[in-house]
Amino acid sequence: MSQPTSAISPTRAADFAEWYQQVVRAAELAEPSDVRGCMVIKPWGYGLWENIQHTLDGMFKATGHKNAYFPLFIPLSYLAKEAQHVEGFAKECAIVTHHRLEAGPDGALRPAPSSQLAEPLVIRPTSETIIGATYAKWVQSYRDLPILINQWANVVRWEMRPRLFLRTAEFLWQEGHTAHETEAEALEETQKMLGVYETFAREHLALPVYTGEKSAGERFPGAVQTLCIEAMVQDRKAVQAGTSHFLGQNFAKASEIKFLSRTNTQEFAWTTSWGVSTRLIGTLLMAHGDDDGAMLPPRVATSHVVILPVVPKEETRAAVLDAAYALAAKLREVRYHGDPLRVEVDARDVNGGTKNWEWIKKGAPLRVEIGPRDLEKGTVAVARRDRAHKEKSFPTNAEFVDTVATILDDIQATLLNRATAHRDEHTVRIDTKEEFYAFFTAKNPDKPEVHGGFALAHWNGSAEVETQIKEDLKVTIRCIPTPGQIQGAEEPGHCVITGEPSARRVLFAKSY
Amino acid sequence: MSQPTSAISPTRAADFAEWYQQVVRAAELAEPSDVRGCMVIKPWGYGLWENIQHTLDGMFKATGHKNAYFPLFIPLSYLAKEAQHVEGFAKECAIVTHHRLEAGPDGALRPAPSSQLAEPLVIRPTSETIIGATYAKWVQSYRDLPILINQWANVVRWEMRPRLFLRTAEFLWQEGHTAHETEAEALEETQKMLGVYETFAREHLALPVYTGEKSAGERFPGAVQTLCIEAMVQDRKAVQAGTSHFLGQNFAKASEIKFLSRTNTQEFAWTTSWGVSTRLIGTLLMAHGDDDGAMLPPRVATSHVVILPVVPKEETRAAVLDAAYALAAKLREVRYHGDPLRVEVDARDVNGGTKNWEWIKKGAPLRVEIGPRDLEKGTVAVARRDRAHKEKSFPTNAEFVDTVATILDDIQATLLNRATAHRDEHTVRIDTKEEFYAFFTAKNPDKPEVHGGFALAHWNGSAEVETQIKEDLKVTIRCIPTPGQIQGAEEPGHCVITGEPSARRVLFAKSY
Repeated sequence: MSQPTSAISPTRAADFAEWYQQVVRAAELAEPSDVRGCMVIKPWGYGLWENIQHTLDGMFKATGHKNAYFPLFIPLSYLAKEAQHVEGFAKECAIVTHHRLEAGPDGALRPAPSSQLAEPLVIRPTSETIIGATYAKWVQSYRDLPILINQWANVVRWEMRPRLFLRTAEFLWQEGHTAHETEAEALEETQKMLGVYETFAREHLALPVYTGEKSAGERFPGAVQTLCIEAMVQDRKAVQAGTSHFLGQNFAKASEIKFLSRTNTQEFAWTTSWGVSTRLIGTLLMAHGDDDGAMLPPRVATSHVVILPVVPKEETRAAVLDAAYALAAKLREVRYHGDPLRVEVDARDVNGGTKNWEWIKKGAPLRVEIGPRDLEKGTVAVARRDRAHKEKSFPTNAEFVDTVATILDDIQATLLNRATAHRDEHTVRIDTKEEFYAFFTAKNPDKPEVHGGFALAHWNGSAEVETQIKEDLKVTIRCIPTPGQIQGAEEPGHCVITGEPSARRVLFAKSY
Repeated sequence: MSQPTSAISPTRAADFAEWYQQVVRAAELAEPSDVRGCMVIKPWGYGLWENIQHTLDGMFKATGHKNAYFPLFIPLSYLAKEAQHVEGFAKECAIVTHHRLEAGPDGALRPAPSSQLAEPLVIRPTSETIIGATYAKWVQSYRDLPILINQWANVVRWEMRPRLFLRTAEFLWQEGHTAHETEAEALEETQKMLGVYETFAREHLALPVYTGEKSAGERFPGAVQTLCIEAMVQDRKAVQAGTSHFLGQNFAKASEIKFLSRTNTQEFAWTTSWGVSTRLIGTLLMAHGDDDGAMLPPRVATSHVVILPVVPKEETRAAVLDAAYALAAKLREVRYHGDPLRVEVDARDVNGGTKNWEWIKKGAPLRVEIGPRDLEKGTVAVARRDRAHKEKSFPTNAEFVDTVATILDDIQATLLNRATAHRDEHTVRIDTKEEFYAFFTAKNPDKPEVHGGFALAHWNGSAEVETQIKEDLKVTIRCIPTPGQIQGAEEPGHCVITGEPSARRVLFAKSY
């Protein structure tokens, strides 16, 4: 047997899907629970979510939204109100049918038959219907509009093949739900929140996402228009990382959100909804990790700096630990993009090499070793997660405190640049059916996941072509890219499958 | 019919329970949903929860805790593991039995019979059992301890008689769950978190709570010791506002949280759990509100200052609104206890008097009117919610910005002082059974809620006496007060019911 050359086995090249699962475990981000499809989000993973929440929440509030909270339970009849919605969502969900446990004839606990609910309750897979029913009570006149509300919540969609963070039965998310007087305002809101997501993904997650509109076949059930951000991860597949839906008057009609207009007529409101979830964490891990584990973008990293005291001899322990905590205190006074630097001292009595590798796997942006020799020289040994693990710099304590924010910004930029180069390299214009099929067929049958990437190709606009491509290649239209975003995407041409005329290219990819 | 003399009808004196419901509605804090027992928390109410979360979360982190997230679902068999726990909790909860909907023979949606779960899942009423199962995997050695984790989550306990914020089927809370190497450490943790709750209630919610230990009959199911904070609200009843449980090794044994000790033996961990919920909001409303509505303590108020532009003539509108937004911007630069001041401009085209009363009912600490005459003089009209609604001061803009934090602190202190005086006035030592029964019997049969308040009385320590008092008077032992907290509580005496010797007084009250 050969020695492993990286901390995570298998490598990304050997088996990307399995590499991902191993990274999530090795980085102590999450683990499966005994409840099928549900995960336990561990502190190092939940910290990412807290930082994502903190920043996004600020962006939502800066755009005029307020938070509220709506019930976990949705009466079954609510889901049936919007025809397309029920088609799309009423399939796999958790259904509450009883409200009391009792000891059965065999003495074992069971749902008490006498406690059966007259109407089953569904655990929210999304909250359009129950929020719609509430807005219908709140809205009487155009003066009550707009309603600009967001909710941070858990939702449940039964999943038979869960994948930590990317697809779990229960997940955490935010769902914005707004109601407007006019179609134009609702359309503007839909675009505005797509912009918030794109900015957040780029600036905070170092994810260069494509924005665009979903084809009719990929729309949110009941939406008139679904906008999305699509990220490319390292196996060149797409992840839909956020969506913003223009719901027209569909849900307003189903929920009867009506108002007396400025001209004294009864009108239905125009509504939107938009959301991102803990899936963002899976996306950033797949986009930035390497064969040694996770690589967290500094802007959302659970901790920015981990300080590792090096204690070769017991008699130096107290001095080294004092210096480590003193440095941590100094660093916590530094503000990084407005918030105090997040610093951890790992003082556990664990072998130094083991400890260092744990933090590499966890993806902490900066590891700082401090030992007796550093104390003498007044320096620290700093390693960046985006560089080779043996590469270190040796600034003085003061130099490090002065430059730490700049170094973190440099790591952030490096991650974004790498992800952008990867995405651009594997986003390819394709003009023939032969090339298209070759692009999405693995070169090596042992590694079926390694295919071309994102294909910009012409499409005749038909559902039939979409279905054929999906069945043949497991490839879908990720989006019709926002005009002006990809050079040449808006040029006319001919459908890559049928040869029929097409006004513009769309983005095809395999996806998670 | 006489004119109402207050904004909320009925008044507190006329019907306290109904006054509370009316305040929650009039202040736009929350409303019942169509799902029985579940509430919609509106933005003005949810803002309180966000501020409570923000501060408590900081206090938890400052005491070494990290956040994580565990599944919403608990397998039925988990709940049955700890005998006392199942007795206490397995009664009324939401039970998931199916995972798919389908159209039935009549075309209507129903739970698909083929999707019935082999083991029903219970929506967490609290998470000791599922977190215990997880900790059992995490803990191998004493080096893995302590585990200091908190979770912010929704929980469900089926309620037939819900009361907004105080008792709802679904509510929001935090639950801390810690595991320790020694009994002493776990006991210290239990006390420490009780201290955090007491400090938070006093300094942020302006609630002068009594701390103490529950009697055996009132303990959390499965706990060895339950500590609590008990608040008195304006009808002199108690609200249990937070609990901290020392669980001994009970849950560790049920979940098999075992570790290899420093002396190489297998030991069970010592665990604790502690929580507060959205019930805190109900408590602060009942403690501080008046007959004109809610009165929010500034430290947690959704907004600190609401600016009300006064526009008597259309031609002054632009200038007045400009001045209002300029003042808001200046105020938002002020830091109040470390965070930016929360300021709202109510520019709605609504009658000024109506608008002013809305904000009185909502309980905003400071209302600031600004109109054309104020612009001329460079002043604003400031009204404090803790004073008569017509009482105003007229500082210049600059004076107001300079003093706003001090004014808010003064309001906060006023609320705490009032609540403390009320509590102290109605906490009475009682030494005879006759007095005890009289104390808890309403003087006026039309207002059964108006009784004496908190009784400090001697108790023989028996469950029989507790039961008798509960059945006769609906009075319970709220706590055995922390020694040194109430003067004279530790003096010996004789049980108020049986005359048997008693080492110390305990606190009796009616409660929510």
